Amino acid sequence: MNLTVLGSSSALPTSERNPSAHVLNVHERIFLIDCGEGTQLQLRRNKIRFAKINHIFISHLHGDHVFGLYGLLSTLSLMGRKTDLNIYAPSNFESMLHAHLSDFDISLNYETRFHPLSGKDPVKIMEDKYITVTSFPLEHRIPAFGFLFREKEGDRKIIKEAIGKFNIPVSRMNAIKKGAGLELDDGMVVPNSEITTAPPVSRSFAYCSDTRYFKKLPSYVKGVDLLYHEATFEKDKHELAATTGHSTSTDAACVAREAGAGALVIGHFSARYRDVSRLVEEARAVFPETYPAMDGHSYEAGNVRSF
Amino acid sequence: MNLTVLGSSSALPTSERNPSAHVLNVHERIFLIDCGEGTQLQLRRNKIRFAKINHIFISHLHGDHVFGLYGLLSTLSLMGRKTDLNIYAPSNFESMLHAHLSDFDISLNYETRFHPLSGKDPVKIMEDKYITVTSFPLEHRIPAFGFLFREKEGDRKIIKEAIGKFNIPVSRMNAIKKGAGLELDDGMVVPNSEITTAPPVSRSFAYCSDTRYFKKLPSYVKGVDLLYHEATFEKDKHELAATTGHSTSTDAACVAREAGAGALVIGHFSARYRDVSRLVEEARAVFPETYPAMDGHSYEAGNVRSF
Repeated sequence: MNLTVLGSSSALPTSERNPSAHVLNVHERIFLIDCGEGTQLQLRRNKIRFAKINHIFISHLHGDHVFGLYGLLSTLSLMGRKTDLNIYAPSNFESMLHAHLSDFDISLNYETRFHPLSGKDPVKIMEDKYITVTSFPLEHRIPAFGFLFREKEGDRKIIKEAIGKFNIPVSRMNAIKKGAGLELDDGMVVPNSEITTAPPVSRSFAYCSDTRYFKKLPSYVKGVDLLYHEATFEKDKHELAATTGHSTSTDAACVAREAGAGALVIGHFSARYRDVSRLVEEARAVFPETYPAMDGHSYEAGNVRSF
Repeated sequence: MNLTVLGSSSALPTSERNPSAHVLNVHERIFLIDCGEGTQLQLRRNKIRFAKINHIFISHLHGDHVFGLYGLLSTLSLMGRKTDLNIYAPSNFESMLHAHLSDFDISLNYETRFHPLSGKDPVKIMEDKYITVTSFPLEHRIPAFGFLFREKEGDRKIIKEAIGKFNIPVSRMNAIKKGAGLELDDGMVVPNSEITTAPPVSRSFAYCSDTRYFKKLPSYVKGVDLLYHEATFEKDKHELAATTGHSTSTDAACVAREAGAGALVIGHFSARYRDVSRLVEEARAVFPETYPAMDGHSYEAGNVRSF
């Protein structure tokens, strides 16, 4: 599970930082989180295959998180996509999107399945064999939502040597992977722990942007391996952060610390900071495992390093 | 007068080519022509000052020519712009734009002055001391317009030595620059040609995208120094060009030749052509002074070279 940052600027992009967009890769399944202007170009630059995107999550309806979506949807259609595309966004976006596409004479060759976000509590918005995604409310100037991605526990792995030793029949393998023991012909049972190893650790990632700090937020992202949290301002701008519905990097670090996160990536930097090292330092004073978002860089959940 | 290409792709951008956007610089006055996704980022990369943009021309309402506009307008506002901004676009765009900005909670700190494009004949849509801009109809799947930028003839230059020799009074200088002779105290008149040199040559540029070839088009861009013309396809795709309302590079070259243009820049290339040299060759067979558009390159009217 790793996060690639496509855009780490706030509303004003710079020559090094594009507007908000992020890709979460979970075993080569791609989740796009926010879709600022230029996302499709950033996807190309980072060699991320468009066809792998089946789920797009839009945190809130400010342009710097959305204005790349029209171009991307249109491009997917021109590239011949037929598969349904899932879009998770605040509930009023569906009609806006359709009106806009029709204004621009865009008819998509595939279906968009719209999943409205709303409410004041965490809600499970997606689930498949490998992962669940939960949305939770943020506090911004307009309705905004965070997302928690949690891998499901995988199957246990059968030890190779055990297969021969106990002559394990194929028909029993699925049950054993799920934790069952193996009943032998003489009625004896070999305990599961003797013939399997533990599944790979399941990882989790949470995305919090845009938001001011509020008390309940850490509880929504409790124990995540990797937390992305906006950090628009340095801490001396905490009043501006509060009035604009944004966070300082110290706020972000407090959320990470209170949540017991494994590591924190801060981003959504105000264009006033060409050098974000102070934002990082201020966050590290509270939560040492803090890393700055950089366009084109990836961050692995559970293996805290940027590469 | 020079043209900087910010985006030379057609609907599908590539890693080297952004969607359509072009900047015409006329004595450091900046005219933005089309505004595809990523224009504001391309403006930054090419170090073009946002504050110098006072006129934006939108040829037609397909996303690859427009989707960078919302972000740019919003950025101009965040950067503190107060000056009115002129937008020239097909007439139905004004309400679409306002609806969209309001959907996204964007209120601009400056006024947008909207100039609707319509009709079947060339129309002068802008004029100031230095330049006139004329729109003319193109033939595409939806209403589309080209733009002709023509510098006005400048003042004649008074020869330095003549000022001393004839003791030319300051009060006469403006008239002399406009072509008047100088009456001396003894009633003799020194003809203008003896005390001035000709003004710098006035240049012209025309922009034709998106369009299929049609007979009247060359007459709209007669004698321009520099012609930008779309060339989405190679000539073997001329039927596809016709049905999609686009041109082959041969079509573009025919327009340049029939118009007697000084030089031709072709762009808006289909993503199928990684290498556009064949498009250029096919055009040069008809009109030798053809140059391919490349993102970030500039082309000077009247001084045919790309730099």
